[in-house]
Amino acid sequence: MTTLTPSGTTRGPAEPTSDARITLRPLAPGRVTVDAGLWRRTADVNRSAAIPVGLEQLGKAGNLRNLEIAAGQAEGEAIGPIFADSDVHKWLEAAAWEYAREPDEQLLADQLRVTALLAAAQADDGYLDSVPMLRNVPRYSDLPWSHELYCAGHLFQAAVAQVRGTGHHDLLDVAVRLADHLVATFGDGDGQLREVDGHPVVEMGLVELYRETGTRAYLDLARWFVEARGTGIIEAHGHGPTYYSDRVPVRGATTVEGHAVRAVYLGAGAADVAIETGDAELLAALETQYRSMEREKQYVTGGLGSRWEGESFGDPFELPPDRAYAETCAAIGGVQWAWRMLLATGEARYGDQIERMLLNGFLAGVSLGGTEYFYVNPLQLRGDAHAEGDRSPANGRLGWFDCACCPPNIMRTVSSLTGYLATTDASGLQLHQYAPGTVTAPLTGGTLRLRVDTRYPDEGRIALHLEEAPEGEATLALRVPAWADGATLDGDPVAAGTYARVTRRFAPGDTVVLDLPLTPRLTVADPRVDAVRGSVAIERGPLVYALEQPDQEDGAVVDDLRFDVAGSLSDEFRPDLLGGVTVVRARGAVVPGPDPDATSPYAPATPTSAPGPAREVALTAIPYYAWANRGPQPMRVWVPVL
Amino acid sequence: MTTLTPSGTTRGPAEPTSDARITLRPLAPGRVTVDAGLWRRTADVNRSAAIPVGLEQLGKAGNLRNLEIAAGQAEGEAIGPIFADSDVHKWLEAAAWEYAREPDEQLLADQLRVTALLAAAQADDGYLDSVPMLRNVPRYSDLPWSHELYCAGHLFQAAVAQVRGTGHHDLLDVAVRLADHLVATFGDGDGQLREVDGHPVVEMGLVELYRETGTRAYLDLARWFVEARGTGIIEAHGHGPTYYSDRVPVRGATTVEGHAVRAVYLGAGAADVAIETGDAELLAALETQYRSMEREKQYVTGGLGSRWEGESFGDPFELPPDRAYAETCAAIGGVQWAWRMLLATGEARYGDQIERMLLNGFLAGVSLGGTEYFYVNPLQLRGDAHAEGDRSPANGRLGWFDCACCPPNIMRTVSSLTGYLATTDASGLQLHQYAPGTVTAPLTGGTLRLRVDTRYPDEGRIALHLEEAPEGEATLALRVPAWADGATLDGDPVAAGTYARVTRRFAPGDTVVLDLPLTPRLTVADPRVDAVRGSVAIERGPLVYALEQPDQEDGAVVDDLRFDVAGSLSDEFRPDLLGGVTVVRARGAVVPGPDPDATSPYAPATPTSAPGPAREVALTAIPYYAWANRGPQPMRVWVPVL
Repeated sequence: MTTLTPSGTTRGPAEPTSDARITLRPLAPGRVTVDAGLWRRTADVNRSAAIPVGLEQLGKAGNLRNLEIAAGQAEGEAIGPIFADSDVHKWLEAAAWEYAREPDEQLLADQLRVTALLAAAQADDGYLDSVPMLRNVPRYSDLPWSHELYCAGHLFQAAVAQVRGTGHHDLLDVAVRLADHLVATFGDGDGQLREVDGHPVVEMGLVELYRETGTRAYLDLARWFVEARGTGIIEAHGHGPTYYSDRVPVRGATTVEGHAVRAVYLGAGAADVAIETGDAELLAALETQYRSMEREKQYVTGGLGSRWEGESFGDPFELPPDRAYAETCAAIGGVQWAWRMLLATGEARYGDQIERMLLNGFLAGVSLGGTEYFYVNPLQLRGDAHAEGDRSPANGRLGWFDCACCPPNIMRTVSSLTGYLATTDASGLQLHQYAPGTVTAPLTGGTLRLRVDTRYPDEGRIALHLEEAPEGEATLALRVPAWADGATLDGDPVAAGTYARVTRRFAPGDTVVLDLPLTPRLTVADPRVDAVRGSVAIERGPLVYALEQPDQEDGAVVDDLRFDVAGSLSDEFRPDLLGGVTVVRARGAVVPGPDPDATSPYAPATPTSAPGPAREVALTAIPYYAWANRGPQPMRVWVPVL
Repeated sequence: MTTLTPSGTTRGPAEPTSDARITLRPLAPGRVTVDAGLWRRTADVNRSAAIPVGLEQLGKAGNLRNLEIAAGQAEGEAIGPIFADSDVHKWLEAAAWEYAREPDEQLLADQLRVTALLAAAQADDGYLDSVPMLRNVPRYSDLPWSHELYCAGHLFQAAVAQVRGTGHHDLLDVAVRLADHLVATFGDGDGQLREVDGHPVVEMGLVELYRETGTRAYLDLARWFVEARGTGIIEAHGHGPTYYSDRVPVRGATTVEGHAVRAVYLGAGAADVAIETGDAELLAALETQYRSMEREKQYVTGGLGSRWEGESFGDPFELPPDRAYAETCAAIGGVQWAWRMLLATGEARYGDQIERMLLNGFLAGVSLGGTEYFYVNPLQLRGDAHAEGDRSPANGRLGWFDCACCPPNIMRTVSSLTGYLATTDASGLQLHQYAPGTVTAPLTGGTLRLRVDTRYPDEGRIALHLEEAPEGEATLALRVPAWADGATLDGDPVAAGTYARVTRRFAPGDTVVLDLPLTPRLTVADPRVDAVRGSVAIERGPLVYALEQPDQEDGAVVDDLRFDVAGSLSDEFRPDLLGGVTVVRARGAVVPGPDPDATSPYAPATPTSAPGPAREVALTAIPYYAWANRGPQPMRVWVPVL
């Protein structure tokens, strides 16, 4: 392993082994820096606010206390959900990748202190999960709901992050003991348990641990969990097999269904298995499933999960904007799955998917200040929406949740985000996401180092300045998003929805300019998406836009706004607004609200039943991710057409 | 009490005392007969199939066994939900009203046998609820969820039905012992429990028992339960106070919220209290709440409850057709509430409401054969809807449910339905619902007896033939539904949405003819009902229509149908179809389904993104209540306009 430098780690999350069947190889987070713009701002508040406050929240919520009790350092009863440890693991992962971005003694000390708690809490045989231990739940007696392997999976991911991000293997030692215990416990062997966890993630975690340690048994167990699922193996726990992605074997499934986070974590874990075992059939099944999800079950924000009931995917085209669940964690899992599919296939569409999910459905999950979170990310909030329960979007973002899966999941995603920007292959370097900063890629002919100059996604010009170039020819492949009709590379038109490639002998001082047209555009949905019939969404570049109440003209209630397609769209960068956003303006109208004297919302379809005359107003839309940063406000992404 | 005759009971459900503050007085079910048509067919299968099969189902599901164990006549553990007894009580109520309609020895013997079980299971101090007893749940230790008072409320309703319907007071004796126990246990007194049940119904039951026995303490306790609620009195049980209608005192609430069945049962019970205590303020609050429900939270089918999550009302105008919950029990509770508001206010709109709910959202809950049931009543079922869990409409109707609240609730409603048809006041007789049969009303000047000749709701002519007339003037008031623009009474135009009245001295042989125009019509929703934007519903008279797959022209997939508003609507009675229904035909089109090559449901809003050319087809709509009688089929009430 290369020695770590303060500039970061040389290996990031989900880096396949050299034997893996992949098309692209990740460029480690440490090889990429982002030094300005949206992602830098997000990373900065993640580091300065979210992660330290997150540790405090884990203290207040009792997660750390549970570990202290399990470690014999305190007395009391376990607090919180059965999977409380997993939030600690996700925080540890965030802290580790953050340390790799820029070392900090306090950050290291904090994570090693928490790691020591985990080590002290671990049972002699490797088992570790504080809440079931403290509640005397017999081990694995309730795997549909106990989340014991879910917690293990997150611990494995955190352990790999810690060793890669800080060089310390304290948590890796814990992870290996736990993983060895799992290998001994689960499988088809005599006396082994033939069961899987109700909530996937252990699959990803085991493969990561295999990648870090080389212990093949971890990969084999991950594959065993993937293959065992889908046979009704999970006993009901108030849910049917669909909920658990346990109705159809992963290898035979043609779509995603059930609990959205579970489904996409399973997809990502199965992709890891397919990549590392060279299982083309499994990978093909995952491609089919991913396509089905993208084609029929994804919100325009990238959000996943249409139903509050079971936090689940709905039927095809069932995509209600108001009751979208679109859990923040589902967007994260979606990114993880898409990233693995991108590595496996090299298809630009997965890069598009990652961008759509990250910049919309994911980023909306966290406040601009970094310390408040949405669990649920709807595409519409009505003016009179009732708030109850900590997941209700009508509350606005909250500092923490009874089930706090999302906040530390956001933290670890942001702290490892530079790992999703670029890859290499034998031909050269691929840039999948664009942010100002530097990329340093070790290619076969030597190092390719470039500076990315851009104000993307506010502006579409992405200029790459070569600072160091390898020997011989190399290819720079730049993702041109599917929406980017009219894009140019060094002035020449390039096709949208694929990579624009420049193959040549590069030299320091060379510049390559990709220009993505960021003209605001209108988007319509397939007519089978009944819930948004007669409506349009505004997009600009990779950003989905929303009308939020504070930006509208006096008296124009968001619930009553209409879009006038005869008008044109204009945009303006507003440095003062919401941390600096480009707003989009459109011609619209406000129609009269409900008649207070009406006795029913239903009326004969006659001309007299039409609402009164519409009043023309200018509509102002902001990026969806930035909504609800001025308190919870009426908002809508899909705007009915006048 | 007047002696019972085989022709039925002289007192029905929810008959206020002579002191009650009401405008209209119910005409007992025994005074009204229905001898043909839709309601007769429904009543016949209820008697011949649903009720006997229901008793078998209660046996198979373990409900009766629970009582046998509690009675010491069998051994074992309780089976089923904590509120299993309530299904027995509802069945008993159904059997009692059915016996009143037409005595039958087996029907009587069955109910007395089940009643004897209840009597034997009752504790010495009057407490009775078999499942908590058998599971050793300490009494009232978990009232948010134990449903102990819910079961009591249903028992009280059944007891009143039994004594009124059969003359036997076996169950009334049990009820009085239980009610006396509740009076001693609950309230503000020293040592009393200051708690209410998570699920209302005991309020209605106690008032009924007060009406039957004259024991004022029962009314007082009902009022106490109504007043105590809405103060956060119910401890969370995975739900917040909204779910339990416990956020705002009933007297201060301006809308309905939370679990729909609970909310409307509470509304009905509070109306009973308001009526019997002359509480004008409470009644006014209930009117406000009912209006809000009707104006913002009710489906066009009358269905109540927009969310699967919490089986609850949604925000105003949140009325998705596909994910409508619209529980059959909520329609029943809605009818009960509307009926009490009708008695209190005499307003025709409550009659309209009862008709809309009964003939659409309620009647869809039961198969034409009477023995299969929907728990959930959506207004749309897509072709590729996934079925899982026994409440999923994609299963079609089922014979029973793990939570079997709906089937016996339907049975008792159908068996007492004649009680909802007519009322009297000092001026004469009011007819609220129309079905062929006879009405015999004891008025101050003597008996008014008339025959109703009609084929309503297939035909709009309702002819009343006087067979016996009272002395002096009397008023016949006939509800003219709000949709019935163009209605005539004896050829003269009458206003819609109120009662058409004829005041004169009637004589045997007189005929009065109300003609309601049943031209099929198109209905649109308030624009704030985002989920059905750009769509129309077909209605004809009181019936809401639906497009169901089997009736459409070859190859026209329901999901892809469009309504052509330039066409006209026609109707035809089809005696062969679905027990005899009037179908409505319209001009429509079928548009191409989703592009199998599409990668996303979202596309730029350009002319080229429009779907391919539509193919003209004739649309055939059937009454909504009759859908899914040919297996579960794609269906939609709201049809997008071409």
